[in-house]
Parts: sequence; C-alpha cells; structure tokens
Amino acid sequence: MKNLKGNAMVGQSGGPTSVINATLAGVYEAAISSEHIETVYGLVHGIEGLLKDDFVDMSIGLETKEDIDILASTPSAYLGSCRFKLPKLDEKTDVYEKIFEKFSKNNIKYFFYIGGNDSMDTVYKLSAYADKIGYEINIMGVPKTIDNDLAMTDHTPGFGSAAKYIATATREINRDATVYAPPCLTIIEVMGRNAGWLTAATALARNEHCKAPDLIYLPEITFDVDKFIEDVKKALQKRSTVIVAVSEGVKLADGRYVCEAGLNTETDAFGHKRLTGTGLTLGNIARERLGIKTRHIEFSLLQRCAAHCASATDVSESRMIGARAVENAIEGETGKMVYFVRKSNSPYEISIESIDIGKIANVEQTIPREWINEEGNDVNKEVIDYIFPLIQGEARVFMKDGLPVHAVLPIKRD
Amino acid sequence: MKNLKGNAMVGQSGGPTSVINATLAGVYEAAISSEHIETVYGLVHGIEGLLKDDFVDMSIGLETKEDIDILASTPSAYLGSCRFKLPKLDEKTDVYEKIFEKFSKNNIKYFFYIGGNDSMDTVYKLSAYADKIGYEINIMGVPKTIDNDLAMTDHTPGFGSAAKYIATATREINRDATVYAPPCLTIIEVMGRNAGWLTAATALARNEHCKAPDLIYLPEITFDVDKFIEDVKKALQKRSTVIVAVSEGVKLADGRYVCEAGLNTETDAFGHKRLTGTGLTLGNIARERLGIKTRHIEFSLLQRCAAHCASATDVSESRMIGARAVENAIEGETGKMVYFVRKSNSPYEISIESIDIGKIANVEQTIPREWINEEGNDVNKEVIDYIFPLIQGEARVFMKDGLPVHAVLPIKRD
Repeated sequence: MKNLKGNAMVGQSGGPTSVINATLAGVYEAAISSEHIETVYGLVHGIEGLLKDDFVDMSIGLETKEDIDILASTPSAYLGSCRFKLPKLDEKTDVYEKIFEKFSKNNIKYFFYIGGNDSMDTVYKLSAYADKIGYEINIMGVPKTIDNDLAMTDHTPGFGSAAKYIATATREINRDATVYAPPCLTIIEVMGRNAGWLTAATALARNEHCKAPDLIYLPEITFDVDKFIEDVKKALQKRSTVIVAVSEGVKLADGRYVCEAGLNTETDAFGHKRLTGTGLTLGNIARERLGIKTRHIEFSLLQRCAAHCASATDVSESRMIGARAVENAIEGETGKMVYFVRKSNSPYEISIESIDIGKIANVEQTIPREWINEEGNDVNKEVIDYIFPLIQGEARVFMKDGLPVHAVLPIKRD
Repeated sequence: MKNLKGNAMVGQSGGPTSVINATLAGVYEAAISSEHIETVYGLVHGIEGLLKDDFVDMSIGLETKEDIDILASTPSAYLGSCRFKLPKLDEKTDVYEKIFEKFSKNNIKYFFYIGGNDSMDTVYKLSAYADKIGYEINIMGVPKTIDNDLAMTDHTPGFGSAAKYIATATREINRDATVYAPPCLTIIEVMGRNAGWLTAATALARNEHCKAPDLIYLPEITFDVDKFIEDVKKALQKRSTVIVAVSEGVKLADGRYVCEAGLNTETDAFGHKRLTGTGLTLGNIARERLGIKTRHIEFSLLQRCAAHCASATDVSESRMIGARAVENAIEGETGKMVYFVRKSNSPYEISIESIDIGKIANVEQTIPREWINEEGNDVNKEVIDYIFPLIQGEARVFMKDGLPVHAVLPIKRD
C-alpha cells in the first residue's frame, strides 16, 4: 500500500545480538524523518507488549543524535524481547483480532519486526491476516541472529560482531593456552544448534602466529567420539597445546546431541532443547582416554552481547538495513523481509533487497558441505573468505569511567 | 651491588595476565637503554628454560619501537611460563649450583622475574643463594597476578585489566539477561580461590542503568546455601532478572569448596564423572529449589587474557614497574620486589617502592572484612573506590584485518 500515513510500531524478538539495537536505531531514524510517519512506538517485549498494551513513544530518551548513536552501540534488545509464537491463521483468530484492534486504535500503518526465523513467522502471519481482513498496513521483517542461519540473506545482522568476538577471544585464548610447556587440550564451545557459522568463525583467528583452532567440529557433520580422540592425538603430535572449537549442537550418529549424554535437557517455548555442556563432556572424555590436562571454555552469552568488541561493518550494515525496511515500507512494500545480497568478496560489496516473507520463513541455512574439509574436522578457505569482510572495523563504543555506556529504555527498571 | 656490568636475564612465571608482557616490555626497554647491561636474555618457560638452556636474545623480534608496543599489548606470557618451585635452600643445592653455573657462563649480572607469590619465592631463594656463595648479581621480582592477592603492593599489575573485562562483561550480560520478561537467575562465576578481588570487580558494572550484580559472594565469607537461596528469593521480589556474581573459591562452613560439594557426582552417558563448577552447582540448586530458569556463565580464561579490553592505567603502570625494577637493580638493589603505594584515590596517584622479598613472599592479601557488607552478600563502597582508578582508560590494541595482532616469540612454534 503506497503512501500510507499514520504511526509506526517496531518490536524486537528472539535472542539478543550485539547489534539488534543498531537496526532499531536505523528503523527509528528513518521513521521519524519520514513525513508519512508521525509517532514511532516501541513494543516492550515484542508482540507480547502489544497484547498487553505495553509500548512506548520511542522519542522519549532518544532526543539527540548521540542518544541514537549510543542506542546503536548498546547490546541486547533495548525494547526487550519475547519468544511468543502466533497461532496458525486458521486456528485461532482472537489473538489476531486483538492485535489489529490495537493497530487500528493507535492508527498503526507501519509495523517493523526485528528478529530471526521465528520472528519472520510472526511477520508472515500478521501480513497475511492484514491482507485477509483488508487492514491497510505495511509490515516488514528485519533479520537478525548471531547464528547466521536465516535463508535467503547473504548473512544476518549480528553474525559479524559475534564472529569478531569469537575470533578475537580464540586468538587470545591461544596465547594463554600456549604459555605452559606440558600437553594440554583446550575445548572452546561455541553457540549454534544446527548451523556451524559461529564455530567456523574461530578459523578467522588463525595467522602466522596463531595455529588455533587445531580442529573444528560443526553440527553439519555427524560427530564421532572415537574419531575426535584420534584427531586430538594426531594434533598433539604437532604441538603440545591443542585447541578445539566445537559447536554446542554437534550430534552423534544416533541423532542425540553430544551434550545430551545423561543430562536433563529442558526445552524452550519453541520446543528447542537448551544446550550446554558439549565442551565439558568432550573434555572429560579426552582427559580419561588420553590422560592429558583438558579444560573447556564456553563463550556463553558474551558471544551475543560483547558489544565492546563489535564489528563496525556489522553495526553499520545493521543500521542501514533497518532504515531500508522503513524506506521500502513507505514505498508500499509489505509482508517482506529485507536482506543482504553479496556482490563481491573483494572488494566487499553488498546490496539490500527484499523478498516475500512466505518464501523465507523457517528454513535454516547451514554451511555447505563443500565449505567443510573432507575429514569433517575443519573448514575450507571459502568460509574464511566469506566471514572475513563481516568482522572488519572496530565499532564505536561510548565509554564513561572506564566502562561502556548503554542506552536503557526509560521505563525499564533494570 | 652498585654498578654491576654484564648481561641481564628476564623470565615470566605463574598464570598469564593481559599485561604481563607490558611489564616485560618495560624491563626490556629499560635494560637495553642502560649502559650497564649488554644483552637481555629471555627465559623460555621461566626458570625451567634456564635449567634447559632455553633462553633467547630478546632483541630478536623486538627491533622497532612498534614491536615493543605490540609486545606490551599482547596477552599472556611472551616468553612462556612455568610453575616450577625451587627446593628449600638447605635441602638440595644441585639445582642452585646448576643455575648459577649458567649465570656465570653467560655473564648474567641482572635477573628479573615477573610473577606472583610463587615467583617471589624463587626471587627470594635465588638472591639468598647468591648472597651465600658471594655471586655478584642483582635480582629483582616484579609482581603480576589478576587475583590481586599479593601482600604489600597496593594492587598487582594485571588486576586492573581483569577487573575492567569483568565489569564490562557483567554490564553487557545485564543487558542480555534483562531482555525477556520471565524470572531468571544468572550466575556469573569469577576466578579467585581465596581472594575475592576479581568477583568484587563485578560491582563496578553498576550504574543508574545497571543493577547487576544483585548479589556478590566472595571466598572471604563462608558460603551458606540456604542463605543464598533466601537472598535470591528476596532479590527476585525486586526485579525479575537476578544476576549473582560468585567466586569460584567460595567454601562451605565445613571447609569444602561449593563446587566439590555433593552435586558433582553424576556421570555422563559415556560413563565419565562430571566435574562441575561453582556456578553450575549453584544454578542447579536454585533451579530445583526456586523452580526458575537459571543459567551460569564462567568468564574462564578470558578474564586473564582479554587484552582487547585492557585498562590503559594497568598497561602503563605495568610497563612502568618493569622499568623501575631495572633502574633499581642498576642502582644496586637485589632480593627485592617493586610494588605500588597508593598516595590518593582521587585524584589517583601512586608511587613505586621496593621491599625485601623475604618480607612479602607467600602471604595472601584478601578483602578486608569491613569492605564487605554485614550480611556477607555484597561489597561496600570502599572496594569500588579502590578498584575504580585501576580500570580507567582503554589500552591501545593493534588491529589488523579486524583482529588484534600479538607479538610472538620468533622461536615459538604456536
């Protein structure tokens, strides 16, 4: 619907990243500078906030250019997030009725949702419902996820900063791990249930002075414990310090996660298993079978919130893609997701396009088999060439008293 | 012994820090610019390298001012480290004979050892032995440890950078942890077996926008599981996200470490006993007793090697104290450790002094009881005022291709 006039609403959903607020800043800046949009409302805790009438005029607290720049450098979701899943369109319509009643009451003509696969599902359903009832609104999805597992887009906003942190930390850990002479195995556990992009990013740490990681295990490849032990043994013949990067999501041939071994696993609202302890499990096995010192490191939340080490490329692209979603919506697009197309690796060049959300939702993009070495214990050069441009540049961090300053929603009490 | 002329030797020992190489850079720069010192040898893996004749001319690889600056910004020990303990002086003298034979053969007149409590023990024994046999050499100890548990010195080089990383990460984790609405307990496990300085540094994260950590448990205070659960319950009444900082070294009244206590006996499906950490153990207890979502984060090695987030104050002081050790040795001092005296908190002012090593070795400096709150679950303002100046300023990081560049000893093969 071209040239709609009214208010806009923006929400954030799914797991945090270092740059999801850069996208929010991009949406906000483009929206307030458009003559088609009057007020920009921020949904507190995503679609849940809408259902509870918990949304705020975003201009409060974002008065100056610097306020918006600080927002863009703040990790995690400024507006809060949720993992709310809308029912099927033909199943229960009362939630949809409620949502559109609120849209209508607040004259919402633009809706932007920043999130991963599950959030794009929300965008798809809301735009389909709007279409069905003939409500005039332009709804756009903006991708984000550190996992880089969204289909269609060349890469996801958030991945580059996570990759930069992971590669930086891997290189620093290599310096630490090589400090003593006796043999030692260090296992680095990286996030990623089904896609190994983040684990693959450890390979960026390598240079003439850094051999780490010696081995890389991705969820794309079936994990074999005996093969792993053999690999480590071989690597220990080459140097006394061996550093292994392993994805939390590696699975055995019988389909069980390595970390499931005897642990109580919980599932989240989407039925995803909560994974921890792959590195711990493998460290215990290696210690017993090889009789060497082992230790494991989980990057844990830091890989998705270490904004102090964010990629300038990622921050800038995330802001741009947020702004583009607004521009496209004003041009009349709806039910679409904006995404990156890579024009070339070197010099690195991208464009931002948009696609019907129905074509992309709920498909996971994993690492192509040919980008992984034949043995299945390392990545090929293609992965490094692909990730390399995404970690370039150091994002600006606003410092005060020796620590980063963050933007916090005025109404939030944390 | 004043005005000795000859060669110098320098070694690094004990656990790595982000700035132990800044001290090495300070030692090296002062030594090569002195007319009393000809060649500066670096011991590979500390005193172990000396016993194996494994030492290098440090000028190789450190040709330019920038080489030395990159060294000063490289985490962990450039020369490698060891945990070698010299025998008692009156017990076995053959090791000492061997060491001094090598000193004599290489015309070593100055010896600098950068390390923690155990390393100062080495300095003490070597200087006492030199005195006993009448070998002319000036031996100086330079402190380092992230734990800040060395007695005498106001603080240790390395602590400020670890504290800055810990406070930064705590603040970022707070942003991440507050993203969802449902109640959640996040437990941050920080290094420190007996001294709680690093765990206390999480308190620096607090500002008007960051309430984390809600609770702080130090090894200085006996840990009571029931009290901990009560504390968390109370904190959950104030906000739905509760973040607890706990030292890995907290102990129960019976003297056992919390991480040893009962809950770590499960075995995984591979039949291996699971070693669990303090944070994991407490998370499991809280989940069971309070029925809430919990997660734990271990800063692990990153807290001692995250040079990408080092304190400029710490780097500069570490370099200065290394240089001062050399100056004092040239002035004739031996058997001493250089250390910091704090003149004032605000404006922050220190001086560097030296003291007989026998007076300081093997005494641990913990947090004074009056700097901890009465309940024993938080720190008082004194701790924050004490740590605050040590985390100020962002150290220069040499970046290439989006990642930090490190100095690596030319002969090292990692």
